[in-house]
Amino acid sequence: MKKAFLVKKGDIEIRDVDKPTLQKDDDVILKLVRASVCGSDLWFYRGIDSSSSDNSGHECIGIVEETGSVITTVKKGDFVIAPFTHGCGHCAACRAGFDGNCQSYQDIWSSDCQAEYVRYQHAQWALVKVPGQPEDYSDGMLASLQTLSDVMPTGYHAARTANVQQGDTVAVIGDGAVGLCAVIAVKLRGAKQIILLSHHEDRAQLGREFGATDIVEERGDDAVKKVMALTHGDGVDAALECVGARQPMEQALQMVRPGATIGRVGVPHDEQFDLGVSWANNTSIAGGTAAVTTYDKGVLLKAVLDGEINPGKVFTKSYKFDDVAQAYADMDQRKTIKSLLTF
Amino acid sequence: MKKAFLVKKGDIEIRDVDKPTLQKDDDVILKLVRASVCGSDLWFYRGIDSSSSDNSGHECIGIVEETGSVITTVKKGDFVIAPFTHGCGHCAACRAGFDGNCQSYQDIWSSDCQAEYVRYQHAQWALVKVPGQPEDYSDGMLASLQTLSDVMPTGYHAARTANVQQGDTVAVIGDGAVGLCAVIAVKLRGAKQIILLSHHEDRAQLGREFGATDIVEERGDDAVKKVMALTHGDGVDAALECVGARQPMEQALQMVRPGATIGRVGVPHDEQFDLGVSWANNTSIAGGTAAVTTYDKGVLLKAVLDGEINPGKVFTKSYKFDDVAQAYADMDQRKTIKSLLTF
Repeated sequence: MKKAFLVKKGDIEIRDVDKPTLQKDDDVILKLVRASVCGSDLWFYRGIDSSSSDNSGHECIGIVEETGSVITTVKKGDFVIAPFTHGCGHCAACRAGFDGNCQSYQDIWSSDCQAEYVRYQHAQWALVKVPGQPEDYSDGMLASLQTLSDVMPTGYHAARTANVQQGDTVAVIGDGAVGLCAVIAVKLRGAKQIILLSHHEDRAQLGREFGATDIVEERGDDAVKKVMALTHGDGVDAALECVGARQPMEQALQMVRPGATIGRVGVPHDEQFDLGVSWANNTSIAGGTAAVTTYDKGVLLKAVLDGEINPGKVFTKSYKFDDVAQAYADMDQRKTIKSLLTF
Repeated sequence: MKKAFLVKKGDIEIRDVDKPTLQKDDDVILKLVRASVCGSDLWFYRGIDSSSSDNSGHECIGIVEETGSVITTVKKGDFVIAPFTHGCGHCAACRAGFDGNCQSYQDIWSSDCQAEYVRYQHAQWALVKVPGQPEDYSDGMLASLQTLSDVMPTGYHAARTANVQQGDTVAVIGDGAVGLCAVIAVKLRGAKQIILLSHHEDRAQLGREFGATDIVEERGDDAVKKVMALTHGDGVDAALECVGARQPMEQALQMVRPGATIGRVGVPHDEQFDLGVSWANNTSIAGGTAAVTTYDKGVLLKAVLDGEINPGKVFTKSYKFDDVAQAYADMDQRKTIKSLLTF
């Protein structure tokens, strides 16, 4: 089968390798229908993070090809979303709705998901079955289903951990695919004012379409001032940090009203912070890895299938899997917000 | 009138000074019935923090002696609790239940409250009226009412910001008066397992009386291991940091299950933390200054008057105001958990 490899910084190539096989009794082999490039893949592509895998791809939907002996929840031929973490569904973390931090297994993270076939471990509870078959759905709906493997639940996690409530005023920092999905999530949870920090008109436009009521184009402290002005000096009820860097966290800490929560979902890269600042303002700092299976089964799959949300629009370009190198390059150069891969 | 002064490190003395007078139209002058020494006063007494006031005392209950021209909520002769912060009740922070971070005024903190009379600023919303007169209550009830000026609401704040829910498993780190009041608060909110970290048998005993189900005497990493064992390896749903130092925060970060919240109410003193650790475990770090008026009016005054909670027991010794120096010295040397002052 074909599989994409990160050969070296900035260089992705497709190689022929053996198809993966069942290795444990709770494995499932999937034949992919869609895959995609995650913002976090670019950290490896750009050489900022070193990868533990030759392929950090972890977002896909597909058809069940084979099932291990203990798998009872899906069968050959089922159409499924493959969450990028694989919770057990019964440990304390999973029961509390944090299956991205499942305590039962160490190896809960997907990888090698930019390939024609994928070995999906601990599949029994984690996989999310989609009604029908891929051919029953439009390309747009398949794109939205593909977001349910990572980016849409990750945006939702920012909103959930920031405890966004009906009627809230919320700032979303970051106009990448995660930030835009966070806008969707914030609207889904009933926020009344959604302020998106965005420096790119195409992304701001999509943000507005997803529910942003205000766009802040300013940077740094000027962005904080603008958010304070938009909230009549109060500060926001919640700030969602969807970048994973120092400056947006510092902005978030400055733009929240006392007692507000910051939901962080950007993978952190520079994390020494003075918690005296958050203490002084009663700010909660929350967030981490999304609980994909919990959100998909609980809220998001229904919202997608009902057409209530349309997160697939973050894929502004689609590529044949053979063109995966171009999919990376275009996303790296911001020619697309997020790259979809078709098979 | 008599007023206590911190002359220098470890030296408290009483001096005769003029009685305070109304200076602004929302001031109230109080004649004190009870005052007390706060754990945070000891930071100044021990010379660890430098004080902006000669008297950092900020806990009292008393009788309204005079009212400024705009005060309509209390009148001369009323018996009141004087919260140590003075919120307005109508800004975004106060409306969200964080009146300890009121956005309307800069000068919301009490001071100079170890004296016979106190000038209480921004009194209109902040003061909490108690039914009847001091002579209607027992000494024990007056002690409990005195805790409502700071320590009991501060313990409650740890539990509230840590989002302690019915049925939760909670660790309370710190067996001072705040930690012990946090145990009361955690029980009041319905936690089923309350683990108190305590190294002193008298404090552990009071903790058990207040609702602690388990006492952990171990220190450092051994305490974390014990908490993990007590929770069958899961970690706690919430950890309450009631010390205000680095080590208890590090313990808290290690003993929480994924997705749990740490409520911090100890005044922070060493606050550079790696937030990558909390991100990796989806831990929320919350807390700050208590919302005393909100909690007293909403929950705590009724619970005290009903005898449902009895936080006054944290005052294990009572002193005539003239003996304030002894009250500090005994608390500093752990001869009493908390020192009550009578007039």
